[in-house]
Amino acid sequence: MNDENTDPLLLTPGPLTTSAEVKQAMLHDWGSRDPSFIDATKNVREGLVEVSGGGDAFTAVPVQGSGTFAVEAMIGTFLPKGNKLLIVVNGAYGHRIANICDYMDRPYTVLETPEDTPPDIAAVSETLAANPDISHVVVVHCETTSGILNPIQEIAAAVAAAGRNFMIDAMSAFGAIPLDLSQIPCDAVAASSNKCFEGVPGLGFVLCRKMALEQTRANSHSLSLDLFDQWQAMEENGQWRFTPPTHVVVAFEAALAAHAREGGVEGRFARYRKNCDVLIEGMKTFGFEPLLPDNLQAPIIITFRMPSDPNFAFQDFYGHLKDRGFIIYPGKLTIADSFRMGCIGHLDADDMRGALAAVRQTLMDMGVNSGAP
Amino acid sequence: MNDENTDPLLLTPGPLTTSAEVKQAMLHDWGSRDPSFIDATKNVREGLVEVSGGGDAFTAVPVQGSGTFAVEAMIGTFLPKGNKLLIVVNGAYGHRIANICDYMDRPYTVLETPEDTPPDIAAVSETLAANPDISHVVVVHCETTSGILNPIQEIAAAVAAAGRNFMIDAMSAFGAIPLDLSQIPCDAVAASSNKCFEGVPGLGFVLCRKMALEQTRANSHSLSLDLFDQWQAMEENGQWRFTPPTHVVVAFEAALAAHAREGGVEGRFARYRKNCDVLIEGMKTFGFEPLLPDNLQAPIIITFRMPSDPNFAFQDFYGHLKDRGFIIYPGKLTIADSFRMGCIGHLDADDMRGALAAVRQTLMDMGVNSGAP
Repeated sequence: MNDENTDPLLLTPGPLTTSAEVKQAMLHDWGSRDPSFIDATKNVREGLVEVSGGGDAFTAVPVQGSGTFAVEAMIGTFLPKGNKLLIVVNGAYGHRIANICDYMDRPYTVLETPEDTPPDIAAVSETLAANPDISHVVVVHCETTSGILNPIQEIAAAVAAAGRNFMIDAMSAFGAIPLDLSQIPCDAVAASSNKCFEGVPGLGFVLCRKMALEQTRANSHSLSLDLFDQWQAMEENGQWRFTPPTHVVVAFEAALAAHAREGGVEGRFARYRKNCDVLIEGMKTFGFEPLLPDNLQAPIIITFRMPSDPNFAFQDFYGHLKDRGFIIYPGKLTIADSFRMGCIGHLDADDMRGALAAVRQTLMDMGVNSGAP
Repeated sequence: MNDENTDPLLLTPGPLTTSAEVKQAMLHDWGSRDPSFIDATKNVREGLVEVSGGGDAFTAVPVQGSGTFAVEAMIGTFLPKGNKLLIVVNGAYGHRIANICDYMDRPYTVLETPEDTPPDIAAVSETLAANPDISHVVVVHCETTSGILNPIQEIAAAVAAAGRNFMIDAMSAFGAIPLDLSQIPCDAVAASSNKCFEGVPGLGFVLCRKMALEQTRANSHSLSLDLFDQWQAMEENGQWRFTPPTHVVVAFEAALAAHAREGGVEGRFARYRKNCDVLIEGMKTFGFEPLLPDNLQAPIIITFRMPSDPNFAFQDFYGHLKDRGFIIYPGKLTIADSFRMGCIGHLDADDMRGALAAVRQTLMDMGVNSGAP
């Protein structure tokens, strides 16, 4: 998207390519307890609630660290000690939530489908009916393990019908995939600065339903990750309890403003949808096979099966593409050998076409029979 | 220090004023699993061990988030579940460690002296002798609550004599106050990117004695804050387990290089010592009274007692100084009404003189009888 950027473009699930404007916001220093920075925090929190559609019923609580920190903070804060969690899993990020619960010593049940298969809604309802001790349910919106888009609305409806509480790990989807919190019954949604908002990494956040958050005092297993305590402190004086990543926060403020200028979720989705379509279409012409059918594919990151041509070696492919200015991502599937290419970040369809030209040249250099005309 | 920076200078305990070079390092994007970024992480980890003097016996494990995240990670990882911790307290950061233990449900004993009083070494020895169930001891090196420098070597010797394990919260001291880990018996030292190394905030780290760290598997209460798991993953492939704050890390790499060019701890200490002396001397001429005697004052942050002149109102004083380009810090003492001025960051004696000129003008504007000639 032409910022005269000479860095390789990042076709990954994040950290992503960001705009020059976002990076330049970091060329200043802020006092973390000074009114100027308090304003930046306020803008970020209010901007996130605006994007969520949750209105007055929701508040945004930021947390220092990566997206996983935000997910752990969400689970630790919202799931009361001793309560049981149902984790709907179809990839590594679902399993990571189970790992978080192991650390916290909180009971859980996993309901798993294969990495290329959406959750079974009927099975969710059956599991909840059979396990009255499950109080909360959590699912990953877009599982970047495969790139699959999970049916959040249907799961939320099943959880609500069973009278349980719902949480969403929307890390790689929030800000680009529609998720209207005025319509979806859920207590909390975790995401981060460096995914679809195109900020720099170092900051997670959780959109919290205030009525649910008010009940979470003393739930958390961790001072640093206690969203209730963070919220209370921020409401009191607008400040963070502990040193915020000031530069990351102001970059995120700039990124949120750009998101709004692009037309919010709708505008961001349209660009990523186009990126995804151009990339998949082009890769198919070279003979690459996407893991997922179109109807399951989120326009976030695409998993391609590893070609069978013996001349294709992923490390060489990666290195050639990097030399040509594009960084792609290894696979994370357990069910098939694969690699991934992201279509999010400060990138447009022309960048995707550039990546495709680099792939084409690379395949020729490697002597891979690509099926290209 | 003349970077043509027009931001207010930060006379705080951090985040601090950083150099243009450090901030400009953030004008790029990196793939977090790309070899270029893996190199940056390696440079940071090796640079920290170099500064610590710990040599092959130590390793540096970074953790996303603020300094408190690193302290919580250190306590959670090194203190086995069920073991008892002695917390030597003379300020808010010591109490914060007790709060961390409350969250983790790990037993502890507090040995407290007033905020302007160093720990009682004999009392440490007596407490350890009387409580054989205490396995670990922790203390804050420079308590920024007051600015007091605690006698780390004497405490470490007492702990070692009693055969217990020692940990240090060196947040605001590490990199400027000498702390030679080849000489001080301790298992772990926690600090962060945005204090005496003059990086930007968003990254903590713990210097860990490898022989001790090897014994910490399954201690941690938190996946995100498990230093053992973070270490194992980094040793395996040089990568972070979860998205690192890439921009913060490369800024920290630049900051560590500048630290080395300045002559390491010795050079940094000399500049801060001079800053501290100039600031205290000047403030005294205006009638301000430092809380601490010179022999207890770390050259990090200085607590001044609030003047009794009824024309002096801290918020006005703060606002006038900000308008003149200097951001100072509120007090945190429980024992006296006070405010604080930091003397660390990318600032030199001329900056301190500039701050003093601003203070002088402000006092005149406020009609405060400053005792100035």
